[in-house]
Amino acid sequence: MLATAMNHDLDHSIALLTRTPAVLDALLRNLPEAWTLQTEGEHTWSALDIVGHLIHCERTDWMPRAKWLLQHGETELFPPFDRWGHIRECAGKALPQLLDEFSAIRAENLAVLRAMNLRPEELSVRGRHPALGSVTLSELLAAWAAHDLNHLHQMSRVMAHQYREAVGPFKQYMGVMQCAAHGG
Amino acid sequence: MLATAMNHDLDHSIALLTRTPAVLDALLRNLPEAWTLQTEGEHTWSALDIVGHLIHCERTDWMPRAKWLLQHGETELFPPFDRWGHIRECAGKALPQLLDEFSAIRAENLAVLRAMNLRPEELSVRGRHPALGSVTLSELLAAWAAHDLNHLHQMSRVMAHQYREAVGPFKQYMGVMQCAAHGG
Repeated sequence: MLATAMNHDLDHSIALLTRTPAVLDALLRNLPEAWTLQTEGEHTWSALDIVGHLIHCERTDWMPRAKWLLQHGETELFPPFDRWGHIRECAGKALPQLLDEFSAIRAENLAVLRAMNLRPEELSVRGRHPALGSVTLSELLAAWAAHDLNHLHQMSRVMAHQYREAVGPFKQYMGVMQCAAHGG
Repeated sequence: MLATAMNHDLDHSIALLTRTPAVLDALLRNLPEAWTLQTEGEHTWSALDIVGHLIHCERTDWMPRAKWLLQHGETELFPPFDRWGHIRECAGKALPQLLDEFSAIRAENLAVLRAMNLRPEELSVRGRHPALGSVTLSELLAAWAAHDLNHLHQMSRVMAHQYREAVGPFKQYMGVMQCAAHGG
């Protein structure tokens, strides 16, 4: 099948966003900590950190920015986002609790999004990202969905990294073990 | 936490291998086909193709090779593996059926693995891979688990690729959209 890029379909984004909490739950809940607490080295994230980051984004990034955009248009920059804000989210919490929190807050945010019943003309409204400049609401919401895939991609790489010695010569067949960090 | 590579722990491999069918089910079942049938371009795989490949590997790669290794040691090469064998696996099947088949055959293979009650001395037995040469049973079984992560990594990248235009300027923040194919 031809790899034509889709235009943004909000229903497709919602379909994906709805599934991510169950995906992470199926992958991580009660998995040995050797998989979930290890990182790729200093200043990199574990699977647990990634779940914390996703929660932090639910609280302060995607939907708060969507509302901000509709309220302020391009007249005011989005409030800044703290890329290390998950440190506070994760403090003192075990993975099962974080998975529960992510599931709950994602469901809340999607309920709000659905209730907004966004029309095409609203999806074209522009806001101002502090670093990226002018972005549409459509781009912001598509990025919310793609961001889930970005961190599923990162998580599978972080976990595979833990087996880089265990697999011996099979390492050369594992594209995931050749993947540079790409900043997340 | 320090990123020390784990030695191979068979229980950790089994924990991961057990979860993958539910992960793919949570992600893919009833997801719009715009996510599941698209590829990264000609001669690349869709999410559906990847599920077909995982089924094909269950039938002809990991556990069949593990048994072969214990039977023949290094005296006989593993039978060759057909990297495009999933074409036959997938023919005429929709994704829900493939997800069911993957779940069933993975469970069967793990039941056989558990029943083998492998001892450390068996995990050290060597076989002969047609391209990689001498590999231990431990490396083969660790590679089975890491291979799941390899394809979860690929799948998240293939799916994110479909939104490369929809996200607009956010693309530069999406590491997953900078990821080269790494051969899978």
